[in-house]
Amino acid sequence: MNSFGRLFKVSIFGESHGLQIGVVIDGVPAGIALAQDDLAADICRRKSGAPGTTPRIEADFPHIVSGVFNGITTGAPLTILFDNENTHSSDYELFAKLPRPGHADYVASVKFGGHNDPRGGGHFSGRITLPIVAAGVVAKKIIATKLGGQFSVSAGLVEMGGETDMLKWDELLKTTSKEGDSLGGVVECKADGLPIGLGEPFFDSVESLISHAVFSIPGVRGVEFGDGFCAARMKGSEHNDPIGPHCVPLKNGSGGINGGLTNGNQVAFRVAFKPTSSIRKEQTTFDLSDGKMGSLTVPGRHDVCFALRTPVIVEAMTAIVFADLLKTN
Amino acid sequence: MNSFGRLFKVSIFGESHGLQIGVVIDGVPAGIALAQDDLAADICRRKSGAPGTTPRIEADFPHIVSGVFNGITTGAPLTILFDNENTHSSDYELFAKLPRPGHADYVASVKFGGHNDPRGGGHFSGRITLPIVAAGVVAKKIIATKLGGQFSVSAGLVEMGGETDMLKWDELLKTTSKEGDSLGGVVECKADGLPIGLGEPFFDSVESLISHAVFSIPGVRGVEFGDGFCAARMKGSEHNDPIGPHCVPLKNGSGGINGGLTNGNQVAFRVAFKPTSSIRKEQTTFDLSDGKMGSLTVPGRHDVCFALRTPVIVEAMTAIVFADLLKTN
Amino acid sequence: MNSFGRLFKVSIFGESHGLQIGVVIDGVPAGIALAQDDLAADICRRKSGAPGTTPRIEADFPHIVSGVFNGITTGAPLTILFDNENTHSSDYELFAKLPRPGHADYVASVKFGGHNDPRGGGHFSGRITLPIVAAGVVAKKIIATKLGGQFSVSAGLVEMGGETDMLKWDELLKTTSKEGDSLGGVVECKADGLPIGLGEPFFDSVESLISHAVFSIPGVRGVEFGDGFCAARMKGSEHNDPIGPHCVPLKNGSGGINGGLTNGNQVAFRVAFKPTSSIRKEQTTFDLSDGKMGSLTVPGRHDVCFALRTPVIVEAMTAIVFADLLKTN
Amino acid sequence: MNSFGRLFKVSIFGESHGLQIGVVIDGVPAGIALAQDDLAADICRRKSGAPGTTPRIEADFPHIVSGVFNGITTGAPLTILFDNENTHSSDYELFAKLPRPGHADYVASVKFGGHNDPRGGGHFSGRITLPIVAAGVVAKKIIATKLGGQFSVSAGLVEMGGETDMLKWDELLKTTSKEGDSLGGVVECKADGLPIGLGEPFFDSVESLISHAVFSIPGVRGVEFGDGFCAARMKGSEHNDPIGPHCVPLKNGSGGINGGLTNGNQVAFRVAFKPTSSIRKEQTTFDLSDGKMGSLTVPGRHDVCFALRTPVIVEAMTAIVFADLLKTN
Repeated sequence: MNSFGRLFKVSIFGESHGLQIGVVIDGVPAGIALAQDDLAADICRRKSGAPGTTPRIEADFPHIVSGVFNGITTGAPLTILFDNENTHSSDYELFAKLPRPGHADYVASVKFGGHNDPRGGGHFSGRITLPIVAAGVVAKKIIATKLGGQFSVSAGLVEMGGETDMLKWDELLKTTSKEGDSLGGVVECKADGLPIGLGEPFFDSVESLISHAVFSIPGVRGVEFGDGFCAARMKGSEHNDPIGPHCVPLKNGSGGINGGLTNGNQVAFRVAFKPTSSIRKEQTTFDLSDGKMGSLTVPGRHDVCFALRTPVIVEAMTAIVFADLLKTN
Repeated sequence: MNSFGRLFKVSIFGESHGLQIGVVIDGVPAGIALAQDDLAADICRRKSGAPGTTPRIEADFPHIVSGVFNGITTGAPLTILFDNENTHSSDYELFAKLPRPGHADYVASVKFGGHNDPRGGGHFSGRITLPIVAAGVVAKKIIATKLGGQFSVSAGLVEMGGETDMLKWDELLKTTSKEGDSLGGVVECKADGLPIGLGEPFFDSVESLISHAVFSIPGVRGVEFGDGFCAARMKGSEHNDPIGPHCVPLKNGSGGINGGLTNGNQVAFRVAFKPTSSIRKEQTTFDLSDGKMGSLTVPGRHDVCFALRTPVIVEAMTAIVFADLLKTN
Repeated sequence: MNSFGRLFKVSIFGESHGLQIGVVIDGVPAGIALAQDDLAADICRRKSGAPGTTPRIEADFPHIVSGVFNGITTGAPLTILFDNENTHSSDYELFAKLPRPGHADYVASVKFGGHNDPRGGGHFSGRITLPIVAAGVVAKKIIATKLGGQFSVSAGLVEMGGETDMLKWDELLKTTSKEGDSLGGVVECKADGLPIGLGEPFFDSVESLISHAVFSIPGVRGVEFGDGFCAARMKGSEHNDPIGPHCVPLKNGSGGINGGLTNGNQVAFRVAFKPTSSIRKEQTTFDLSDGKMGSLTVPGRHDVCFALRTPVIVEAMTAIVFADLLKTN
Repeated sequence: MNSFGRLFKVSIFGESHGLQIGVVIDGVPAGIALAQDDLAADICRRKSGAPGTTPRIEADFPHIVSGVFNGITTGAPLTILFDNENTHSSDYELFAKLPRPGHADYVASVKFGGHNDPRGGGHFSGRITLPIVAAGVVAKKIIATKLGGQFSVSAGLVEMGGETDMLKWDELLKTTSKEGDSLGGVVECKADGLPIGLGEPFFDSVESLISHAVFSIPGVRGVEFGDGFCAARMKGSEHNDPIGPHCVPLKNGSGGINGGLTNGNQVAFRVAFKPTSSIRKEQTTFDLSDGKMGSLTVPGRHDVCFALRTPVIVEAMTAIVFADLLKTN
């Protein structure tokens, strides 16, 4: 389903080319100042327009239609809507016939008996991450209110197409764009200032909740905490965190989590994003109209590396998880 | 909390050295043959005793106390209990004073105000994965009943301490054991025979649900699907699955999932397990009794590489996810 | 929280005098025809304007902004919005000072630290039952699609101010209106055509789910099934349903439910609604501005008997419960 | 399903004549003293043996197998088991052929394809209310810990077979028993000392949650709060609570709840229980073995008025609801 969270619950809806997309946030405490302007910075970070992202731009103005009165949250469900304006729905008939490699065109059609909205990927579109970013802003405000400003969450792209030297990314984007190809990337996210003991052993471990939320972002292929996959290649004596004064682990090989619970260290994890699936290069696909193999050059303008736009979404998911954990713990 | 699943719901309970541990499974369809014996094989795979695992052995006999009548599931909640027998609780006072690096001793104590059961890690123990394995057997039977036997799920250790050549593992275990150290590993899991369209976009994506379940297993540091972290270093033209006859993706870079939905291919993912935290080598820790730094040599007999015992747990979690998805889709 | 349902999930939001109110319905099957016009009849039944209801009228036009494509549900979350237009928010400052007897003015203010939207009752308003009626229409369509049209649910007012003879209601309304007073009523709801076996013993009994949903409607004081409170005064030999041919109970003393499960008979229950709380007659209240007792004559135009408008809401709640049960059973 | 509660979650399991029945309680705060003895009083109140109840008696000894260490709750799931000892399963083959009027024999068989455990009603048995009573004790302790002892919940039978004069009940029971018939009753429950503002408008209203829980008890036909069904026959000026000093409602016509929220008054509601379905008088039923009408005299020893044993169950359900609300609010 399309909801996440136990007491701070985020429900998303909408399609890429529908009338509106949005989010209902239930469980927002009363008394938090919230204005449309507060959402601007994070919404802007998700926007396209920068090198490597699609030149197609939406206004992304957030309409807060419930849950706020006189600029203060009321405790009732908070609803934020966004209009879809800059839509060109002409291509979708092509993809119904020739499903795009890497996209959900075909599986969505099977699952929903052909009734899914195919325009721009419909409900499967990355556009639905926009209301998630809005919910993330609300979550960050709730956490800051509870923890008094000591909390921060910060995500950034640390690797693009395997390249960790940011100075080389512009060149990489240009070359790849010329080739009609695309790039993946790795996002690192760090959350500081959380109290000890958030989370539960087993099914509500912090890792379980964060990975659940983060794998909801389209295009994620992997999530690892602390030393991550490298931990599997380390000895216990290398990976174990020595425990320092006042029981603070001295390294952070476990990513700030022990036994599913925050341990007072920085919560740190990395997310692998696949390269953009829509590329200009010709790809092999199956032609549903004649039952023969065909080929497809995905038309339109696409992100060369959509991972560039995802750090703020990863942050939002992280904040959503911790806003909920602070309410349930 | 300690439950997972929407319509096929698994609730676990118990402590490492308590009277009994167990699982209540709600949502089991009526009419499935289930005997104690059916659980034996998977329970055995999780047992210790093999090289690299602890010589401490429990009988692990499953008591089915509700939900089965005349050897057939009734549709009522199915409860399976296990006795704890081979417990030696003498060490836990030491760990209350000198928390073990890599364990939850300290954070659990903070979270629960010192009231958590510290014996053998209490509820934070890997022992609680035993009832999960039992639930996995039930889940596998449900899936097989629904899908007519075409379904299979199979997990195995593919890497130990960075070594992928299984022939060298025995030697590696011996050397590491002598050093008083431990090893991590990578488990690969493959599920075949699933219908197209299980899962949902966003919060109930197959990746979200599997990662949620798998990160509940103590000691997991990372989860990746298909090409995983490598996907972040590939071009779109390399990573994208060309779509073959009848819309079957020809490679499996996405791990059998598109847009959060099964696509008819094998669901494939990899799980990174940390090295066993309990090692004989001396480690630095904080002495809570005098507020000074101290050191600890964890006594007792431990797995050199507990990842050896985890493939059946990963399988169980996967089966639990798909048993639920088959009911909710 | 503001959601109901397991697989057919209804989430409501909005305030009486806010910008928009609405509902997100998750779990709507794909392939069901749905147009704005389909909602008109039920929305109309909830409208005011008839004798005994307030003359204040809203357009109540439903905006379907997601989940429908080309007039067919897509399987993605279905969102329906309504504008608030005919709002007069001038009185609420009075009620902040002099809380209205029978209303939530004071408790809401305590719960939300004074930040709740007080205009027209804010989120506590009966206006939020409008999106529930819309969700009910969707639920009815889903049930009809599943059960092939044999299903019907029908609720009606069977008692007003203790009077069961409908011919006398007009006179009763006029007299009561002149007195500046209000009337309660009893709604009876009947659902036919349901299969045997929906529901569960204990926490998901049909009675539990229906009463949960129905007690969510503002102003409900009681719910009883079949013989209801009279059953407590009957002998077993009187109350028990003799079982007739093909195991159909011959009376319907249990309201179509045994052991929490539908038994193939008509599901029948009655709902007690209190009289409208807002009356012109002077009432005693506490003056929060000076800490002394005061009195209040609630200004504005109100329903004499709001129960007249509730049968369609009770129907909607019933349909929502069964749409969900048909998905989960 | 068989769970209730959001953060204080009660999961029940077991069959009337199975090996064990029990409850897993998730979300119990750490640090609460709990011994087997604490459960004795409430378990005793539910026991049979008194006039009007069945002479069949179970030991009902509670085995606490997890969640308690050194007599203190640990914060981990708390599991309480009960053995079934005094079972006579000889009659169930008769009821498979001749379903008992008022029981779930037939609907359960249809729902579960004939695989339900039919012995003593299986999972549909009132015996499963025993673990609920145990959970109620835990809930009461949690509430008392949170609210400092000001909280009390108390339920009692106020009407039996329509008779409100307790002095006449013994005679009524004897006469009815001789006739081989049974009696219903009305239970009144009162909860004092709750803070203002528990509950939510709409789906988590206090009435919704309590009625949900209470209708889970087998044999409930109606639930009403405050003035209940009488409110439907009152004028607004009669039913409305005048608001007194410090905003305390002066009557309690709404049963301590406004807008779904506790208002500081006593929470008060009444529950209608049907007469015991199992009676010695001959009843009409359908003979599934030959497809003809038949008759049945239910053998065995049964409660003449099982409502006598239910007040402690109603109390338990009420405490379970408020223990959860205190955690979620």
